[in-house]
Amino acid sequence: MTELDAVKAALKTQAVETPSWAYGNSGTRFKVFAQQGVPRDPREKLADAAKVHEFTGAAPTVALHIPWDTVDDYAALAKYAEELGLGLGTINSNTFQDDAYKLGSVCHPDAAVRRKALDHLFACVDVMDATGSKDLKVWLADGTNYPGQDDIRERQDRLAEALSAVYDRLGDDQRLLLEYKLFEPAFYSTDVPDWGTAYAHCLKLGDKAQVVVDTGHHAPGTNIEFIVATLLREGKLGAFDFNSRFYADDDLMAGAADPFQLFRIMYEVVRGGGLTPDIAFMLDQCHNIEAKIPAIIRSVMNVQEATAKALLVDREALARAQRSGDVLDANAVLMDAYNTDVRPLLAEVREESGLDPDPMAAYRRSGWAERIVAERVGGEQAGWGA
Amino acid sequence: MTELDAVKAALKTQAVETPSWAYGNSGTRFKVFAQQGVPRDPREKLADAAKVHEFTGAAPTVALHIPWDTVDDYAALAKYAEELGLGLGTINSNTFQDDAYKLGSVCHPDAAVRRKALDHLFACVDVMDATGSKDLKVWLADGTNYPGQDDIRERQDRLAEALSAVYDRLGDDQRLLLEYKLFEPAFYSTDVPDWGTAYAHCLKLGDKAQVVVDTGHHAPGTNIEFIVATLLREGKLGAFDFNSRFYADDDLMAGAADPFQLFRIMYEVVRGGGLTPDIAFMLDQCHNIEAKIPAIIRSVMNVQEATAKALLVDREALARAQRSGDVLDANAVLMDAYNTDVRPLLAEVREESGLDPDPMAAYRRSGWAERIVAERVGGEQAGWGA
Amino acid sequence: MTELDAVKAALKTQAVETPSWAYGNSGTRFKVFAQQGVPRDPREKLADAAKVHEFTGAAPTVALHIPWDTVDDYAALAKYAEELGLGLGTINSNTFQDDAYKLGSVCHPDAAVRRKALDHLFACVDVMDATGSKDLKVWLADGTNYPGQDDIRERQDRLAEALSAVYDRLGDDQRLLLEYKLFEPAFYSTDVPDWGTAYAHCLKLGDKAQVVVDTGHHAPGTNIEFIVATLLREGKLGAFDFNSRFYADDDLMAGAADPFQLFRIMYEVVRGGGLTPDIAFMLDQCHNIEAKIPAIIRSVMNVQEATAKALLVDREALARAQRSGDVLDANAVLMDAYNTDVRPLLAEVREESGLDPDPMAAYRRSGWAERIVAERVGGEQAGWGA
Amino acid sequence: MTELDAVKAALKTQAVETPSWAYGNSGTRFKVFAQQGVPRDPREKLADAAKVHEFTGAAPTVALHIPWDTVDDYAALAKYAEELGLGLGTINSNTFQDDAYKLGSVCHPDAAVRRKALDHLFACVDVMDATGSKDLKVWLADGTNYPGQDDIRERQDRLAEALSAVYDRLGDDQRLLLEYKLFEPAFYSTDVPDWGTAYAHCLKLGDKAQVVVDTGHHAPGTNIEFIVATLLREGKLGAFDFNSRFYADDDLMAGAADPFQLFRIMYEVVRGGGLTPDIAFMLDQCHNIEAKIPAIIRSVMNVQEATAKALLVDREALARAQRSGDVLDANAVLMDAYNTDVRPLLAEVREESGLDPDPMAAYRRSGWAERIVAERVGGEQAGWGA
Repeated sequence: MTELDAVKAALKTQAVETPSWAYGNSGTRFKVFAQQGVPRDPREKLADAAKVHEFTGAAPTVALHIPWDTVDDYAALAKYAEELGLGLGTINSNTFQDDAYKLGSVCHPDAAVRRKALDHLFACVDVMDATGSKDLKVWLADGTNYPGQDDIRERQDRLAEALSAVYDRLGDDQRLLLEYKLFEPAFYSTDVPDWGTAYAHCLKLGDKAQVVVDTGHHAPGTNIEFIVATLLREGKLGAFDFNSRFYADDDLMAGAADPFQLFRIMYEVVRGGGLTPDIAFMLDQCHNIEAKIPAIIRSVMNVQEATAKALLVDREALARAQRSGDVLDANAVLMDAYNTDVRPLLAEVREESGLDPDPMAAYRRSGWAERIVAERVGGEQAGWGA
Repeated sequence: MTELDAVKAALKTQAVETPSWAYGNSGTRFKVFAQQGVPRDPREKLADAAKVHEFTGAAPTVALHIPWDTVDDYAALAKYAEELGLGLGTINSNTFQDDAYKLGSVCHPDAAVRRKALDHLFACVDVMDATGSKDLKVWLADGTNYPGQDDIRERQDRLAEALSAVYDRLGDDQRLLLEYKLFEPAFYSTDVPDWGTAYAHCLKLGDKAQVVVDTGHHAPGTNIEFIVATLLREGKLGAFDFNSRFYADDDLMAGAADPFQLFRIMYEVVRGGGLTPDIAFMLDQCHNIEAKIPAIIRSVMNVQEATAKALLVDREALARAQRSGDVLDANAVLMDAYNTDVRPLLAEVREESGLDPDPMAAYRRSGWAERIVAERVGGEQAGWGA
Repeated sequence: MTELDAVKAALKTQAVETPSWAYGNSGTRFKVFAQQGVPRDPREKLADAAKVHEFTGAAPTVALHIPWDTVDDYAALAKYAEELGLGLGTINSNTFQDDAYKLGSVCHPDAAVRRKALDHLFACVDVMDATGSKDLKVWLADGTNYPGQDDIRERQDRLAEALSAVYDRLGDDQRLLLEYKLFEPAFYSTDVPDWGTAYAHCLKLGDKAQVVVDTGHHAPGTNIEFIVATLLREGKLGAFDFNSRFYADDDLMAGAADPFQLFRIMYEVVRGGGLTPDIAFMLDQCHNIEAKIPAIIRSVMNVQEATAKALLVDREALARAQRSGDVLDANAVLMDAYNTDVRPLLAEVREESGLDPDPMAAYRRSGWAERIVAERVGGEQAGWGA
Repeated sequence: MTELDAVKAALKTQAVETPSWAYGNSGTRFKVFAQQGVPRDPREKLADAAKVHEFTGAAPTVALHIPWDTVDDYAALAKYAEELGLGLGTINSNTFQDDAYKLGSVCHPDAAVRRKALDHLFACVDVMDATGSKDLKVWLADGTNYPGQDDIRERQDRLAEALSAVYDRLGDDQRLLLEYKLFEPAFYSTDVPDWGTAYAHCLKLGDKAQVVVDTGHHAPGTNIEFIVATLLREGKLGAFDFNSRFYADDDLMAGAADPFQLFRIMYEVVRGGGLTPDIAFMLDQCHNIEAKIPAIIRSVMNVQEATAKALLVDREALARAQRSGDVLDANAVLMDAYNTDVRPLLAEVREESGLDPDPMAAYRRSGWAERIVAERVGGEQAGWGA
């Protein structure tokens, strides 16, 4: 196999998980602008996700969010997904939208609230059992808004206790993926604010606990690819939440704000042997003002382009330049790959996979956008509301 | 008059405007936690604001937000405020919650939307005419989320045109206060992102246009007191929106996150002759998890304490140390005031004004919190929703 | 002329000014790593700059820094530059390396120090008269490290007075370019910290005063292209200092840290009609660990590539998408240009201009690097030292 | 013992280590302003440190930096310190000022450089053996300036190898304290950029490896007290480097930029049982423009004031409010301690310890400042230079 063939082969098997909630409405604290044709239930979300996969060939699974995607029969939902050519992916818990969670969930000072949150996490594992999902992704909105509001350290004790209980509940093939976030919705302290905290907890939990890197959840100036490289080295990188940001957790389309950063991240993934099914590559974005399905298609394509560039890095030449201490040469090798226009290569990959070389154009021609606007009338549009 | 008497006199006349919307529910994009006893209409907001003024003696006016505070008869509302011992203050426009404003308001690419937004701003001036409010505060959520989404420069042209039209509509005693904000809800570009942009527009508009400094609307590391000093020097500081933040526009209680910063800001206000009725000292906060009325009382007290410390700075000693180039001495003079516990002084000021020395305790004893929970049953709680 | 021809024509005339000091040693506060072959006087710096221009065809002028480039006979230096195929560009003042400037220069509390700094600025204009340089670039390290250290507002008064005196000293064809910087070397307040401050001063000074945008001098999250667009709209953009940064004022090679940002900046330049000789496009970088001449060649090429992409934006299609409010389409038009590999186009442009298509390779083949190492033995290497 | 007595007792035994290099000259990359009377050798630094301890009673040990404090006879230096009433504290290594370290030290791509750096670290342990110092503090300037410059992950392997070798060299009572830093002097990647990285390495090394928190080494928005609480909970907090900053690693006097933050940090220290000799409380600051000895006295006092406030927090009342979920009450309990003017209490503590209640005034009266200016003439002033 030539090197280019190897690159193509890697691109052909790349899988990006799309989140069910990205197909629904979202917004800022100021306003949620509703869009026409938005899904009204989990099946309609899956139908939209199927279109993303149909045209990109790279989005075979869909992450669910409980309770936003609560259904009576998860096995039936998994079956429906299968009929659409999809699989159900990560189960995402929600311990932030119940009125009880005003001051936290598993870190709440009140044991009753902690118990309620824990029960929800257990229920999510039940959903996993029903859907066959292997990953439980836990993002906790827990934190405090004011100094003194609660005891930072005790909250860590409560956190450890809850995570341990959830971990014990996991089956042999299930994982707990712990996501960190610098701030928001908590504005003073967050209980899992950085990769160090997530890593420390996962380490104690065991091999089935791993860290989620959401690319929008860091302080300004954070070198995210360093974290990726470090977690891969430690065997503790479980998943990505891709999105992009200029300021805070802006949740823009992956690759839209800093395509060079996405490339650098994907380079560390490739270099660290992380381009495998063991790591879940997920989008987690909000399409507040742009059309949702094409925005997701664009995001998948952006991830593909960053990956293609990362795969094209001449690693031998790079290692040579690095070892020789030639700063400019080493940088040039990396930039040569980044500066390459990989769109023709990806078009080729798609054609070889029986896909239209231009997923966006194909989606537009498909009439799906018009069809959902026409058909999805009445009912309540899906959104972040519980 | 001794110096301490002068300090007391200044503190006795200090006025902090509270915003009607701070009495209603607010939250993050993830969840709005409803509180019991929250006002259901503008009159109930005023009733709550009257309590803040009753116990602090320092919150005599209330800012309105249109359309959240839309009423049929503004004159009647103003009359009601007067009966409560309050005045109506700044009128705040809202050009971000209508579906039309998805891509902006006065900067929108579509002239029809711009016209709609402009009409709203005119309507706000009508409200001012009816209430006797002298200030129109314009914060625009306008901006873009993606590079290329719209033409940054053309949006400035549209902005200038709209502001000019509003300016022309003002009466002789009315002002246009232009507020800037780094980001959110727009995540790539914001049309009035910094004081420089607001200043440049106000300069062209004329003397009745001035800049609003919202303490939470800056990039990390921004020296806000420098901006305050500069705008005062230019005669272009019109108003404050006080709140505090650790990360982004967190809208925590003023003085809660960085009390030293609030002191430094108030020092520049005092030093620049800004402690006058010409500058509107307003709170603009979200009490997402804490009780609203006491949080506002606390915020008013925090502003008072920062002001008291600023007034206590020995400016002659400071100037002497500054002129001599003694860095440590100059810093020590400032810190001496900051490190002073001014709570006894403020208790004295309150007692001399016939108030309880401890506004929080007095409010708690008043039974108002229990009363509104009992009485305000049914109806729809006020919030940010249009 | 076809559109591509127009793009090529623009690229052929593009001029990037290189700074004399980038050819000398620089470092961080921790260490300056000396390199072999570094120039020992202004003529050797010019000789190196001539090589950059020889191979890129795009670096025809060199900025001087006084006193680092002090010579007895500036006319002779200009003549020497001419012989090398170069022109002398901006004169950069230095009011931060004399012991007197510990607490500031033109903003210093002591009038004698202010006078000394002003005399230096006058002397720089004298140099301009001798060299024929038309631009005086003023970056002031003035500021304070501790709250209270000096009076923020009085410092503005002193600043205004000094700038006015310098402005009055300018000839008809000379400009004062005022540079702002968020922080460093001052850590609490900086006297010209942002574009708003620089703009406000320039506005009062008059038409010959304009603002310099150093791409590394902003707070995290600042949208620099917005500032560029705004200053162009106001007719107040005088020059750029290009470099790149991940954290603070890192002074890395232009385009190295965020090539997408450089593209967006150049797009606003092109769109705002700024790709003209009226705006000085300068590099201002530190090559602490990489070889200096090739680093500067790379930087010039990075600016060229960003410019080429900016010129390739299909502005009609973009305007159409923007006007229609199609967020994804508009973004896609911009990204299409960014994702284009413009290196072949630039190779063509170079060949059509009689240059080697690969400036880096040509420089390496030239033997210059080896020659200066061999020849420049003894003497004191140029650096930031006064 | 009453509670106040316990507070006083804690304050009387509090020890802040001062760094030898803070007595020497320092500056920014732009300029080092020399001061008169600055020490010229390690003994003179100790003499200055003795003055800080004489007047504060709280600075009994001095950290050394090798090679800046290299002497022929460390035992003699320790003896001299003892005569001055001081002890020698932490030994700080320097693997950044030799020309070999341009691309790193223990993470350098070249094994010979790594060996050289390792030998230096071993030599530092030798110094510890000679001085009786128990802590080796390792701050590595290692990192890269450009993407691709070196392999991020391999550098971690090299780092781990070196740390392990140093760890093995430690005696039973010696510790390796690993310091992290976000950026500078490396501008793209830093090999120990955050607490998570330092923690992960220390965890693998063993019990004698602990993390150093330098308060100026974090990204904007980082909640440092959370890190302190977490490391204490993990038993991995070894030491502090106190200083303060508005922007980056500004190295201003501790408590000067954000006294509230210093209080919150000290509160977590107190709450987490960290106010013990097991944790080294060190200053690490640069007095670029202010007089050095009084600046250090002021910093020690600032740490004392923050500690006093932290000790005054009514922890029972706080826990009660926290458990009840009363956000405002809990915050108020903390703020009550912060708003207290603890200067009278500290004056009392000093008097009870036989010290002058006002260390700054006492130092000024002592004539030491004048004496060192008069006596320390000729020779080379100490500074950061190798």
